[in-house]
Amino acid sequence: MKLPGIPPLDEAAQRQAAARQATLTKPPGALGRLEALSIRLAGIAGRLDWLPARRAVIVCAGDHGVVAQGVSAYPQVVTQQMVLNFLRGGAAINVLARQVGARVTVVDAGVAADFDDHPDLVRGKVARGTADFTAGPAMTAAQADRCVQLGLDVVAREVARGLDIVAVGEMGIGNTTAASAIIAARTGRAPTAVTGRGTGVDDAQLQHKVAVIARALAVNAPAERDTLAKVGGFEIGAMAGVMLGAAARRVPILIDGLISTAAALIAVQLAPAVQGYLIAGHRSVEPGHIAALEALGLSPLLDLDMRLGEGTGAALAMPIVEAAMRTLQEMATFDDAGVSGPDGR
Amino acid sequence: MKLPGIPPLDEAAQRQAAARQATLTKPPGALGRLEALSIRLAGIAGRLDWLPARRAVIVCAGDHGVVAQGVSAYPQVVTQQMVLNFLRGGAAINVLARQVGARVTVVDAGVAADFDDHPDLVRGKVARGTADFTAGPAMTAAQADRCVQLGLDVVAREVARGLDIVAVGEMGIGNTTAASAIIAARTGRAPTAVTGRGTGVDDAQLQHKVAVIARALAVNAPAERDTLAKVGGFEIGAMAGVMLGAAARRVPILIDGLISTAAALIAVQLAPAVQGYLIAGHRSVEPGHIAALEALGLSPLLDLDMRLGEGTGAALAMPIVEAAMRTLQEMATFDDAGVSGPDGR
Repeated sequence: MKLPGIPPLDEAAQRQAAARQATLTKPPGALGRLEALSIRLAGIAGRLDWLPARRAVIVCAGDHGVVAQGVSAYPQVVTQQMVLNFLRGGAAINVLARQVGARVTVVDAGVAADFDDHPDLVRGKVARGTADFTAGPAMTAAQADRCVQLGLDVVAREVARGLDIVAVGEMGIGNTTAASAIIAARTGRAPTAVTGRGTGVDDAQLQHKVAVIARALAVNAPAERDTLAKVGGFEIGAMAGVMLGAAARRVPILIDGLISTAAALIAVQLAPAVQGYLIAGHRSVEPGHIAALEALGLSPLLDLDMRLGEGTGAALAMPIVEAAMRTLQEMATFDDAGVSGPDGR
Repeated sequence: MKLPGIPPLDEAAQRQAAARQATLTKPPGALGRLEALSIRLAGIAGRLDWLPARRAVIVCAGDHGVVAQGVSAYPQVVTQQMVLNFLRGGAAINVLARQVGARVTVVDAGVAADFDDHPDLVRGKVARGTADFTAGPAMTAAQADRCVQLGLDVVAREVARGLDIVAVGEMGIGNTTAASAIIAARTGRAPTAVTGRGTGVDDAQLQHKVAVIARALAVNAPAERDTLAKVGGFEIGAMAGVMLGAAARRVPILIDGLISTAAALIAVQLAPAVQGYLIAGHRSVEPGHIAALEALGLSPLLDLDMRLGEGTGAALAMPIVEAAMRTLQEMATFDDAGVSGPDGR
């Protein structure tokens, strides 16, 4: 698999954005994180007049062999059922995407069920679910390459449709287990520190889930280059591919919760330069999410106790990204507006 | 001054909203604070099909005699200059209001300068700035009534234009000093604990600002009923009036930062039932803001290190309010979508 080259952020554009921020009619720094965000977005896009006009949420779906270990509160069939819900427009991500003017593209990266053709569905199934990674690798090295390539292909198609910003979400019963295993492997944290309740397991099930993750890590001993294959998922590899392809085209990437951020760890491992293109939409209540965000050096824009996935926290952050650029672009300067500076200057 | 009656929240609508949340295609609680927010909004509006369609940001402006004590980094003329900036559409609040589809109404509650007629300006000047409250009350009791009545009149006019949600912002050089004094008086916290840098004073100026507030409290000894008159501001009274009038008409109120929240303390003191109608848009970096939010039992939706005022943090939270209601209204239920519940139920 050939990975695309990722350009560095445009430092001149960032300097121009920072200089313009200092001239706008507000006390310096008064727009807080919007200001730093506008500067980074200018660096990503390579210009100050960028806006997140053409928006897509890419929802990657896959099933997980580890559900045989009883790690989820919901049965595996819910992955398929929710994909159908996405295609009918009834899920939370559909509602939020409509609100913020984003299209939703659903990717079957490895669901254990078949789907009819649908204009919003990319049928890219690598296999009908991963293998149970408590007994060996989740997938082969070739399958890992295939799901990352699927993500690259999907985002190339989205860029061809017109794409200024992308939110990356997912669906897959069992995938908080895979994501926590990836985060433990890549951050060196103990499984107990990065494992949460997912869709809602009880205390005893949470203990069991931690033990399953510990066993998966002991059995597979994932190294930097094979973490996706050893303890990942097809939708997670596809999400990493989407991120790599978006960064290669200077498209900022809004990541979502636990699974999306685990995918970002995989993407950054494949190509460290993707890191500058990542924007953390929200802070999930999943404990592994904070560990993964810290490893990526990211601070989330929203903190609303959400833990749904699908890209919901990323979509909800799109208006904040827009606000960062609109204030940079549209506010009057002290000179334009005839407003006095500090101490009457 | 006759205050309007404020209806209690509609408990039946809240129960219906909570019941519907439990049927939507997501794990229970997975939308986090959006769920509780949707339930409260249903209680405010008295129905589940409410949306924040017709939006206004009301920006109340006033000047403060206490600026004679050298408490601000900016000269008093900036209040007037920024009102003109608002009317020309060049300020941050104009940019954010345009983005979220809100109109901006500017209220001259007591600026120390005169303005020409403008369709977006309410000329309601109570006086050309308050008196310096380090030497006595900021305003008379009659003036306090007049600025609250101004807010009631302004929101009545906005309701007549069509109003589903209101954000309450302000402009007034010196008004973080007044707001911190109100918050110290009403929460019992020490001035040093609730005083911040406002538009950007340095360490020595911050010490001086704390001393000025301590002197104001010692000189005026504000009691519950006269805090606005003793250490408030005309724009703060007008904001409190806007909140009272909005709550009386079941219009949810997005409060902003330090000054807006100090005004909410005044409003709640005048009519405790307004509390249920308040939504905290964001957490300001001003230390007094957290104290005021705690006193009101509010947790802010956004935390982006902003400290600009004008209503910017409130406006930026409007998409989250919309998202709370849209997910409640538009998501499919488990039954509709044929999605299995936990454990295959």
